[in-house]
Amino acid sequence: MDASSSISITDVPGVSCASGWIGIKRDERPDAALFICDHEAVFAGVFTTNQFRSACVESSLMRLHGGKRVRAVLVTSGNANAGTGLAGRADTELLAAGVAKEIGCQADEVIVLHTGVIGVPLHAERLTPRLSALIQSAGSSRVAGMEAATAMMTTDTFPKTSVHTMQTAKGSFVIGGVAKGAGMIHPRLATMLSVIITNVSIHPVALQKALHQAAKTSFNAISVDGDTSPNDSVILLATGHDEDVLTEESPEYEVFIEELTNVCQDLAKMIVKDGEGATKFIEIAVTGGASDDDVERIAHAVSTSTLVKTAFYGEDFNPGRIISAIGRAGAHMDIEQLQVKISEHMVFADGACTPVDEQIAKEVMSQAEIMVAINLGVGDCAGTYFTCDLTHDYVQINSEYTT
Amino acid sequence: MDASSSISITDVPGVSCASGWIGIKRDERPDAALFICDHEAVFAGVFTTNQFRSACVESSLMRLHGGKRVRAVLVTSGNANAGTGLAGRADTELLAAGVAKEIGCQADEVIVLHTGVIGVPLHAERLTPRLSALIQSAGSSRVAGMEAATAMMTTDTFPKTSVHTMQTAKGSFVIGGVAKGAGMIHPRLATMLSVIITNVSIHPVALQKALHQAAKTSFNAISVDGDTSPNDSVILLATGHDEDVLTEESPEYEVFIEELTNVCQDLAKMIVKDGEGATKFIEIAVTGGASDDDVERIAHAVSTSTLVKTAFYGEDFNPGRIISAIGRAGAHMDIEQLQVKISEHMVFADGACTPVDEQIAKEVMSQAEIMVAINLGVGDCAGTYFTCDLTHDYVQINSEYTT
Repeated sequence: MDASSSISITDVPGVSCASGWIGIKRDERPDAALFICDHEAVFAGVFTTNQFRSACVESSLMRLHGGKRVRAVLVTSGNANAGTGLAGRADTELLAAGVAKEIGCQADEVIVLHTGVIGVPLHAERLTPRLSALIQSAGSSRVAGMEAATAMMTTDTFPKTSVHTMQTAKGSFVIGGVAKGAGMIHPRLATMLSVIITNVSIHPVALQKALHQAAKTSFNAISVDGDTSPNDSVILLATGHDEDVLTEESPEYEVFIEELTNVCQDLAKMIVKDGEGATKFIEIAVTGGASDDDVERIAHAVSTSTLVKTAFYGEDFNPGRIISAIGRAGAHMDIEQLQVKISEHMVFADGACTPVDEQIAKEVMSQAEIMVAINLGVGDCAGTYFTCDLTHDYVQINSEYTT
Repeated sequence: MDASSSISITDVPGVSCASGWIGIKRDERPDAALFICDHEAVFAGVFTTNQFRSACVESSLMRLHGGKRVRAVLVTSGNANAGTGLAGRADTELLAAGVAKEIGCQADEVIVLHTGVIGVPLHAERLTPRLSALIQSAGSSRVAGMEAATAMMTTDTFPKTSVHTMQTAKGSFVIGGVAKGAGMIHPRLATMLSVIITNVSIHPVALQKALHQAAKTSFNAISVDGDTSPNDSVILLATGHDEDVLTEESPEYEVFIEELTNVCQDLAKMIVKDGEGATKFIEIAVTGGASDDDVERIAHAVSTSTLVKTAFYGEDFNPGRIISAIGRAGAHMDIEQLQVKISEHMVFADGACTPVDEQIAKEVMSQAEIMVAINLGVGDCAGTYFTCDLTHDYVQINSEYTT
């Protein structure tokens, strides 16, 4: 790891990181990453829409709704602590209390995120004795940040970090984030986790609103296999302590949202590119929709169609599968108005498929990044989504025994 | 093909079949199957819900809404005649007229179904000269029936036929059907086609209602990959000419629906078992739903989850993936009331996963047929659905070049 040339979440002033093994994974690979703020931070979060929520999501929501400040985020991997009932809630709180004790804060100032096997008791009392060593290893070097991003990984093949800065009249501020992707753990369930920290001073309501807006066009616009886990979480911390906080009315607020969106989109695209077994990155741009719901329906149908995704894997120029997915999406449309392009080449217009030269089709499909542009032609709503292909490696990774 | 021991759609009195090559497939493999009734029949149909409809679906719907009688059904494979605009409509009618001329009826008494590549002109004028030879080969032997069922096949690995009889006060009647499954043609798009014929005398309104009811628990309760094609069609013909027709009030009507449902379920299950690359047949039984919509949402989420389907392929006993799919289905539920069983073994109850002995889990997953029973515990609605696993062969079949 060439730390000197890397970016790191520790580029955000006042952030230190730790990582190591606390006893979840049998083979003693790192299974814990800790992100610590020097000062207490306001925080925002977006979470899975799955009705099964891990104990950690319940615990994070309790802190969010209680308006708590946060000093640290602990991410553990190997056990999702989902489907574990009340004992699971106690386990999450035990870990929070363990971290709080070591860094000198309250348990409800520590956020805990889990990822891993569902339905297996966590038994946190086995883990807390190792928290002290974990926290003593914390540092603010780029290496410490990169190691924490790496410790979050499961079947991810590379750590995911993005850092953007914003210039304002008050000076320069940093937004840094890490994520783990839709990989399977030992190999049970895809979980997407992200921790983002900024040194901006901002009102918590404005922070939550900014995260919702940024997530809409990033984490909520990607699909690897259409599944959402009980654990999916994005946590955003703002550590600034200026009395003059950013609000929705501040002139810099839009700039903040823009840079936050950049961080989220960087991380979301990395998750798709590192999707299990993926060989192609596919951008689906929907325009002309009658409603935002319709735009999402179209993007969802196309991005989750196994027929579309296997065609991309096989480099098979196959507009019929895309058009069929559009047709079953249940969106309002007029076939005579519909236009579909694959990487700038029109494949459907005026109610019928249009022929594309075989050599051009072959060339388009050989690219690692492919754009599908769908203009419904019946309204002004639009959105861009990201997905990957469905490959032999995906089936291999996800069909292996857990034992 | 051991015709003597086979059942055949020609077991329905007054039905003859033909099959052969009419010029669609380049390699001169059979690409046309014809089902002829000695007498005109009343007919019913259920069709794809995809907003892109093949010209043949438009043409069939026109005949259905016009209350037409039917003498023959022509099924062609190799070209879906979808995404082909008005020229496509003309092509379908040209084939209907060609068949009508040969058997001596009106063009609107012939139904045409297509399956194959989307967006390529059919040029039916190339095909009509070969219809005469096709029709001259027609016969009412079991071999003729089996050959027609075989000519409909695309990536299907076996022909699909079911015959049931019903005993009534008026005598014995036969219901016979054939189907082609969710295979890809040359390999573009999954299409499910079925032709069912009975010698019952029945009012067309009662016939349509019976088909809707039978399809609900058969063709509309199966999923191979969650896609629906522009061509999916089920055509049901009733050739009986008794003046005393079956109506919804007739005492035999429920028996008719029951036997029709048996034929439809037989064919639907064969389609799933012959799903591309499938190695496991999975029955998903949902009970205790607050609404029929909720039952369908749950069944759809579980049966289309690539994580669930790859786990079954890998014989990985993985309740977490099923529970996560249930959780994202958007159905009304209460996690405390939910119970999930895999082949009779409880895996989720009282709000948490329940442990299953490793040896038992291995035994369950090694079976070719697996039952997932989901009791939502919040209502009285129920339904049973059928799906298959997602395998390397599925990816292989669907990622190959079309060229």
